Amino acid sequence: MEETTEITIDRLDPEGKARRKEPVVREVPFTIFLNGKELATLLCTPSGLNHLAAGFLLSEGLIHKKEDIKRMVLNEKGWYIQVSVNEGATHQQALSPGRLISSGCAGVTSFYRSVDARETTPIDSPLQMSREQVLTLMKEFQQKSSLYRETGGVHSCALATPEKIKVFAEDIGRHNAVDKVFGECLLQDILTQDKILLTSGRITSEILIKTAKRQVPIIISPSAPTDLTTGLAQKLRLTVIGFVRGKRMNVYAATDRVT
Amino acid sequence: MEETTEITIDRLDPEGKARRKEPVVREVPFTIFLNGKELATLLCTPSGLNHLAAGFLLSEGLIHKKEDIKRMVLNEKGWYIQVSVNEGATHQQALSPGRLISSGCAGVTSFYRSVDARETTPIDSPLQMSREQVLTLMKEFQQKSSLYRETGGVHSCALATPEKIKVFAEDIGRHNAVDKVFGECLLQDILTQDKILLTSGRITSEILIKTAKRQVPIIISPSAPTDLTTGLAQKLRLTVIGFVRGKRMNVYAATDRVT
Repeated sequence: MEETTEITIDRLDPEGKARRKEPVVREVPFTIFLNGKELATLLCTPSGLNHLAAGFLLSEGLIHKKEDIKRMVLNEKGWYIQVSVNEGATHQQALSPGRLISSGCAGVTSFYRSVDARETTPIDSPLQMSREQVLTLMKEFQQKSSLYRETGGVHSCALATPEKIKVFAEDIGRHNAVDKVFGECLLQDILTQDKILLTSGRITSEILIKTAKRQVPIIISPSAPTDLTTGLAQKLRLTVIGFVRGKRMNVYAATDRVT
Repeated sequence: MEETTEITIDRLDPEGKARRKEPVVREVPFTIFLNGKELATLLCTPSGLNHLAAGFLLSEGLIHKKEDIKRMVLNEKGWYIQVSVNEGATHQQALSPGRLISSGCAGVTSFYRSVDARETTPIDSPLQMSREQVLTLMKEFQQKSSLYRETGGVHSCALATPEKIKVFAEDIGRHNAVDKVFGECLLQDILTQDKILLTSGRITSEILIKTAKRQVPIIISPSAPTDLTTGLAQKLRLTVIGFVRGKRMNVYAATDRVT
């Protein structure tokens, strides 16, 4: 399915006004039905929709392993997907709009959803990488972002070994791009706990928690984390590498994984 | 309340590794209670929380005017707010996680929530601005973004006349920054239908719909719109000015408002 479309715009610059064709990224409302019931509508770029649905269910704690999914039927024309899962898989958990604040939430560096606290444990991984490997991966990551270069309107996400990118996705949403990557890993049986996540966006606490749930030991971004992110990352022993720009970078938590 | 905090990081560059203090933006879980019931928890930067709550309720269609709010009590220590509204104001409308797809959704350039279609009408405004005014406003906007310059981790939003910025907000979330601006306008009786919205982020359809609901005739961004955005903007006669960079810009819809 096409990820971009051409539209006619007015380009204004010091030379004046010119009508021209420009590519823009596509955005569609994509509805996920879970066991016949409407669950959520995501606004997303129409590629990797199977991956997006699987990753979304995984991130929300509604499934836990590939075998939880009995069937996925994607209707691309109507922008929806029907997913059947084993009834036991979902823990009877609904996507409540009011999020649960866990009892340990007196300090701000805590989980704000009890499901996240339950499903996230500290990361005990021997994975390490060098400063040079971080810079090389970031370069490969940015070269892969063709949709960004074409339209300027998307975020990208990748899963990599210290040497090479293995899975890559782009989407208008920061969260969708991450969900597409983890969904592809789930459906293609690609391990996450021995890999590195790269994201083009800011590392907010929700992105960090998604990453921690998949037991990924290192996350890398050209952008910044928040204080909630760095606090959680320290607790979870998840290495956060931010502001990877030019030849420098900041390591915010579990710094011993960068040699 | 402080919007940033200092943490200790490792800075790695070709000269080696150095421990140093760096400012990071704060992120807190902020829960909105509506008439005593938990409604939603937003992850946000702890400033302008009254504005954020009012703007969120407005964007979600749960209130429509200032008088709908009977009382707002902000508990900053616990990061929550109690809002009492007139029972009639909310149209009995819940924030359903499964969004409504309107019957007109066969074509993609349609509303995906029936509430949005009901509350949004085409914008009939004589407001115009020149290319030079767009460039001057964008410059003022970027100079105001002190939190971005300090931490790199936030989005900003502003409401302006063609000459000057009147309301400004920053937040870790693109949507929160917009909601803070519209919430301040509501609480301070600042008209929106004769002004211009500036946002640092991509112009996705949700941002456009929020802007259209406040009948703002022009939206400006240094970043890109999507095809769903430009399609809706044409229907709604909302002028979209994107990629304002250096001395050039693209006008995507209702181009007659830029002279």
